[in-house]
Amino acid sequence: MAQPGFLRARRPEHKQQRRAAILEAARELALQSGVRNVSLGGVAAAVGIAKSNVVRYFGTREEIYLELTAEAWRDWEQAVTERLADADGPDDVIAALVETLEARPLFCDLLSHVSTSLEHNVSVPAARAFKLVVLEVIAELGARVTEAHPALAGDEGFELAAAASGLAGMLYPAANPPPTLVELYAQDPVIAAACVPFAPTMTRVLAAIAAGLPTLR
Amino acid sequence: MAQPGFLRARRPEHKQQRRAAILEAARELALQSGVRNVSLGGVAAAVGIAKSNVVRYFGTREEIYLELTAEAWRDWEQAVTERLADADGPDDVIAALVETLEARPLFCDLLSHVSTSLEHNVSVPAARAFKLVVLEVIAELGARVTEAHPALAGDEGFELAAAASGLAGMLYPAANPPPTLVELYAQDPVIAAACVPFAPTMTRVLAAIAAGLPTLR
Repeated sequence: MAQPGFLRARRPEHKQQRRAAILEAARELALQSGVRNVSLGGVAAAVGIAKSNVVRYFGTREEIYLELTAEAWRDWEQAVTERLADADGPDDVIAALVETLEARPLFCDLLSHVSTSLEHNVSVPAARAFKLVVLEVIAELGARVTEAHPALAGDEGFELAAAASGLAGMLYPAANPPPTLVELYAQDPVIAAACVPFAPTMTRVLAAIAAGLPTLR
Repeated sequence: MAQPGFLRARRPEHKQQRRAAILEAARELALQSGVRNVSLGGVAAAVGIAKSNVVRYFGTREEIYLELTAEAWRDWEQAVTERLADADGPDDVIAALVETLEARPLFCDLLSHVSTSLEHNVSVPAARAFKLVVLEVIAELGARVTEAHPALAGDEGFELAAAASGLAGMLYPAANPPPTLVELYAQDPVIAAACVPFAPTMTRVLAAIAAGLPTLR
């Protein structure tokens, strides 16, 4: 990433620009190497500023990624809402959830790290801002899912949308294994065959949940 | 933990003893502070030996925890199998899965870190040994679950057992929040109320999956 044409951001628009540059660099690095492999130093180097300068904008590496996760939640909400407008029947609703997640590997990678890592090293205000976005998005999406799915009522759409995001965070890292497992799978086809594929597994589990929830009323 | 009465383990029984002491120390530390907060140096200090000595037994911190995860899978298999022998009806089967997981916080904590962390920094043989245990346990448990649940057939018990372990790894860290979130929840009851409780959420999602799977045949 090119270094911006100023060394220290003093004017508000420069501060905003630098903040955006930090988020953009963190996003690019995570897409290349995975969220878990990006350090604050790596982000600083990519932006071309000192680590001590990055922490004027974000207290920790985790705060950067929590903000990117909040952005990704809003982006996912918009994508699902658009898909649901054309949804015709229960399979379309499940497909809207699964395919929009499959198309967003960075969101899924981020989801896999939220509760085990990203929420651990942030300030209380940063955690609050993040939680408020998630609650708002899931509530909104849940209402849309209940409207679109003929068998669901009340909070069941919320439960299905929450399950979709949770499953995505759980399945993504297993379906995108690290080099050690890639090597193991190449050596051992039986173990490789047991590696769960992302979209088919998501589709089957969400279809089962959507079919089962109304029976629990 | 007391230092064993020898400085360097040379005899096979001493090596076995030291290996067990490392695993035990890692288990205790993880129970106290959570898996993510334990370092290899911390384990070495608790056993009373040098880090360079620990790596004679386990190449990395992650190999120690992957071995503890394999042990915990076998322990869970035994607990569920015992519970299923007395299970009477679908609710008992779900309760057997949920309550044995709820009673095993270290297993759930380990499950939450397997694919995002523990499988990333281990040797191929360590990864293979781990995967073989998981595949064997889930296959065996799945067969027991199908036998015990009146509505399930074929691989559906396997799918339910796999979903139980995946959900446990997903829900445990959210239901056991870090200090920042504890502080946030104390300040903000609305956000606190949205924090999902472990056993009721597990029970509801697994009941929905068990009810829904047969409808997908």
